[in-house]
Amino acid sequence: MNFSSKLIEEGVNAFSSLPGIGKKTALRLVLHLLNQPKEVSEQFSEAILKMRTDIKQCSKCFNLSDEPVCNICSDPRRDHSTLCIVESLRDVMAIEETGQFRGLYHILGGIISPIEGIGPTDLTIDDLISRINATEVKEVIMAISPTIEGDTTIFYISKKLSDLDVKISTIARGVSFGGELEYADGITLGRSIIARMPYKLKEE
Amino acid sequence: MNFSSKLIEEGVNAFSSLPGIGKKTALRLVLHLLNQPKEVSEQFSEAILKMRTDIKQCSKCFNLSDEPVCNICSDPRRDHSTLCIVESLRDVMAIEETGQFRGLYHILGGIISPIEGIGPTDLTIDDLISRINATEVKEVIMAISPTIEGDTTIFYISKKLSDLDVKISTIARGVSFGGELEYADGITLGRSIIARMPYKLKEE
Repeated sequence: MNFSSKLIEEGVNAFSSLPGIGKKTALRLVLHLLNQPKEVSEQFSEAILKMRTDIKQCSKCFNLSDEPVCNICSDPRRDHSTLCIVESLRDVMAIEETGQFRGLYHILGGIISPIEGIGPTDLTIDDLISRINATEVKEVIMAISPTIEGDTTIFYISKKLSDLDVKISTIARGVSFGGELEYADGITLGRSIIARMPYKLKEE
Repeated sequence: MNFSSKLIEEGVNAFSSLPGIGKKTALRLVLHLLNQPKEVSEQFSEAILKMRTDIKQCSKCFNLSDEPVCNICSDPRRDHSTLCIVESLRDVMAIEETGQFRGLYHILGGIISPIEGIGPTDLTIDDLISRINATEVKEVIMAISPTIEGDTTIFYISKKLSDLDVKISTIARGVSFGGELEYADGITLGRSIIARMPYKLKEE
């Protein structure tokens, strides 16, 4: 692209360095900002800078937070005896969105993946064990993706926790609600037959 | 979306205020920046701010520029006797990309559109006339979109220029190079038959 201005070029380069944004989209964003009042760009610029500078990691669950302890961990109305183990912040957001979980989280920061060179020590597993030892946690729910790496991670953590007095569970796996059976993949369908559940006429 | 952090929320809101970026994409961009070293966000933030603050409009052609006169208008190697009239900066970039034009530009800043309330006085038409009067411009090329609004704009400018001693032309219209005839729209195809050109065995 030929830019008439070095400043525009720098703006376009800044945006196009972000994932999924090409040069043409970046130019559109830049021209949009140039068409807006100066304050819009100032606020935009400040929000990005402030976010990156001031954000902290919760010392308990490793979620991103404005305070040293995040608003989930510091909420007395939540069930502090149940920990949900997840891979990332995005999983916390997805679970919070469902409104079905009122316990606390623990973010691993990834899953064990020898191919990508991520071992147990790269994750917050040791912190999880000290956390369980130090608090009144009674149940640990593994909400980790049902992949080979995910299963490895669940197995590793479960072994580490086996000496402690906590119940370990994983989120239910099977065919998706609202999904057509014929489109479910073979592994999911096969395993959901093996792991079939007794049918209840009434919800308990 | 439930955000664990006000700062993340502000970052997501900043990105999702841009055109074509929704909340989910914005979150992906925010998490990407948070995963990068602090310098990346600082540079990003600075590039946006500096761009918006320091950018100028070329006093001759109204292109965006780092200097009071843009690098096209101030280039002595370009043909200062030919002006290409375009709607916006993006059109300048598209034409520059082709490498087929060595004259100067004049950016109207829009086209006449009664529906959107844009009249001739909202555009840089008066500046164009003073510019032609003050310099040695011999030809004016209208590179304006072939729409009703575009044609109105071309008609209006041509009338304004009719007293001046300049040649007026429009860019060629017809079926696209490399396009299949059967997919060309009816108006384009019909007009390109009416405006058929004599075939030359040799390029002149």
